[in-house]
Amino acid sequence: MHFDRLLTEARIATMSETGTPYGEIAHGAIGISGDRIAWVGSMDDIPGSADVTESLEGRWVTPALIDCHTHLVFAGDRSDEYERKLAGESYEVIAREGGGIRKTMTATRQAGAAELAALALGRLDAYAAEGVGTIEIKSGYGLTMEAELAQLKAARGMGLASGMRIVPTLLAAHTVPPEYEGRSGDYIDEVCIPLVREVARTGLAEAVDAYCEGIGFSPEETRRLFIAAKAADLPVKLHADQLSDTGGAQLVAEFGGLSADHIEYTNEAGIAAMAKAGTVGVLLPGAFYALRETQRPPVEAMRAAGVKMAVATDANPGTSPLVSLLMAANMACTLFHLTVEEAFAGITREAARALGKLDEIGTIEPGKVADLAIWDIERPAELVQWMGKRPLHGRILGGEWL
Amino acid sequence: MHFDRLLTEARIATMSETGTPYGEIAHGAIGISGDRIAWVGSMDDIPGSADVTESLEGRWVTPALIDCHTHLVFAGDRSDEYERKLAGESYEVIAREGGGIRKTMTATRQAGAAELAALALGRLDAYAAEGVGTIEIKSGYGLTMEAELAQLKAARGMGLASGMRIVPTLLAAHTVPPEYEGRSGDYIDEVCIPLVREVARTGLAEAVDAYCEGIGFSPEETRRLFIAAKAADLPVKLHADQLSDTGGAQLVAEFGGLSADHIEYTNEAGIAAMAKAGTVGVLLPGAFYALRETQRPPVEAMRAAGVKMAVATDANPGTSPLVSLLMAANMACTLFHLTVEEAFAGITREAARALGKLDEIGTIEPGKVADLAIWDIERPAELVQWMGKRPLHGRILGGEWL
Repeated sequence: MHFDRLLTEARIATMSETGTPYGEIAHGAIGISGDRIAWVGSMDDIPGSADVTESLEGRWVTPALIDCHTHLVFAGDRSDEYERKLAGESYEVIAREGGGIRKTMTATRQAGAAELAALALGRLDAYAAEGVGTIEIKSGYGLTMEAELAQLKAARGMGLASGMRIVPTLLAAHTVPPEYEGRSGDYIDEVCIPLVREVARTGLAEAVDAYCEGIGFSPEETRRLFIAAKAADLPVKLHADQLSDTGGAQLVAEFGGLSADHIEYTNEAGIAAMAKAGTVGVLLPGAFYALRETQRPPVEAMRAAGVKMAVATDANPGTSPLVSLLMAANMACTLFHLTVEEAFAGITREAARALGKLDEIGTIEPGKVADLAIWDIERPAELVQWMGKRPLHGRILGGEWL
Repeated sequence: MHFDRLLTEARIATMSETGTPYGEIAHGAIGISGDRIAWVGSMDDIPGSADVTESLEGRWVTPALIDCHTHLVFAGDRSDEYERKLAGESYEVIAREGGGIRKTMTATRQAGAAELAALALGRLDAYAAEGVGTIEIKSGYGLTMEAELAQLKAARGMGLASGMRIVPTLLAAHTVPPEYEGRSGDYIDEVCIPLVREVARTGLAEAVDAYCEGIGFSPEETRRLFIAAKAADLPVKLHADQLSDTGGAQLVAEFGGLSADHIEYTNEAGIAAMAKAGTVGVLLPGAFYALRETQRPPVEAMRAAGVKMAVATDANPGTSPLVSLLMAANMACTLFHLTVEEAFAGITREAARALGKLDEIGTIEPGKVADLAIWDIERPAELVQWMGKRPLHGRILGGEWL
């Protein structure tokens, strides 16, 4: 075999499901051809040579990290509201005065795609510095045809500007905009479903998401949206059972959904349905932490049922002001009692699965895209243990150093 | 007036106790002469000119941040232990097998001052990137005369290498080393007290600290140490009432201590004594979080009694693997219910007070050292709100851009 690039003297956490913790190769090498991993194995077994051979000098290599749930594209600042809430004011009073998600909506509607992309690119720096290669970004603050599409265009532009893989998701059904107050069903029919068809046609989003909750959309409205998504051949995912058990996990699993996200209140039937459908449970401990919630997602039950678990930041200006995926992994361990390896799989392999991209990214295996993070650490567990550290040596995305 | 440097077009959070939130000057300027702030005020009132005038273009300026409680100098990795604990193993089993603080002690004893400084300088990067100008560093992993002094020398060397202000603290009474097992009193008399005299003589530490707890040193042993510190003219502080109420806060206040740290279990008498003595309560939410503790420090009672509260990382490889002071401030709000302004004061003005250095640093006022952080933010609350962001534009320490 001949490679374009050969990385040698590496300690590799392939994250392959080989039975070895972290899929570790203690003294390994990785052969890259084009943008793909062509070979990975022990230093003793290198099957050929390369145009460029680089020693990683004993550093650890992992898959580039993947954040499978963010709301990174938005305009406006809500730190005033954060400050007022912590001083004891109620969200209701703040929302009545024009705060809350509607403040973000108003600012996002006023911004164009270019301004939204510029703002979000600033937020993306923190992810790049932590070794992230792929990030999902949802719309959901525009809430009109035009403004939702502007958010998705901003997300697409960010990919070109950053060199990172951006996975855009349509979340028009995030909240009911003021012009549809009391008419959430009409909003689904007149805005969300036409948007589903539009993004399917243009490719501006790869999946359809909704917020199914007492304060969001009903299971029946969510179902109507999902039927439209399926008809348009777009996979679905769902903000499910965050604040109460609405049967959301079961609903999204019924549609063969990619993931059920939040899932603090998901019941046994929901877990069984997720296991059967292969729907990933996406844990968002940043929101749990910031909202001072106390109901943990049913991690033990999901583990027992074989439901795969991913971990994401849920980055947003209201309920999860978190742009550190490593901190999310730490919180998944500390607050949700994941093991360290589960948490790290949750921001690599299982995050790829939650995006429907496990055949492309998420592990270091031949045939996958060469998206790698190289670290100055002694053990992968350090990445989850230490809060606020960024021990990244560098990233290789699509076979090239970034 | 003539300044060496004049910073204009700034939004300034002086953090002075003027009654205005954050001591804000909306459209301000700062005159610097030598390493000192010579003047601060409104753009309309600039009283002179300068050799160098720089517009901050509307950016926010705050005091450079101050971390008043860290254990940043140590050798060895305990991520294996972190991983085992999260997988359900008990600390007792891990400690029996040579893990826990004794693992850090063994590695720290084997390293020299130069290696310790090199390791800790790597950890200091995260602080620098968050606008920290001053950081307290404790000994306490050497636990012999020689190894404790090596830690303190490493801390001193870090100041020279980083340009940051390092405040070294002697914490020989951190835990009982194996050679003194069952003879903690002898360890106090034969190692800790001689070390107090040695650091007083050489200036290698600016204060004396101890860990007063059932699993640490008794109040009587702590008292003996404090008497020696007072005789050597060194101020004291204390790890007090973290896991149980030992009367630690009251004890350190009785000695006019700089701070009582942790203080989850501090009682009313302790709070009253702290208020009377001016002893600062140092909140360490990183340890509370990582240990999954549930007993919050008596924040409301301290607020009512007028006890000043600082916030610190407690950075250490066992119980608080946290090197982000902004995350500590966020945790102080989320977990301990501080207001955002209290938390930010806790990593600036009150942290300076906890170090006995409020006359030198911690606010932007004439006569103080020009240690400033310049930020790309819209409001100071953003610094506390957003987890994982580092919106630092730059630092000025001792009057010079770093």
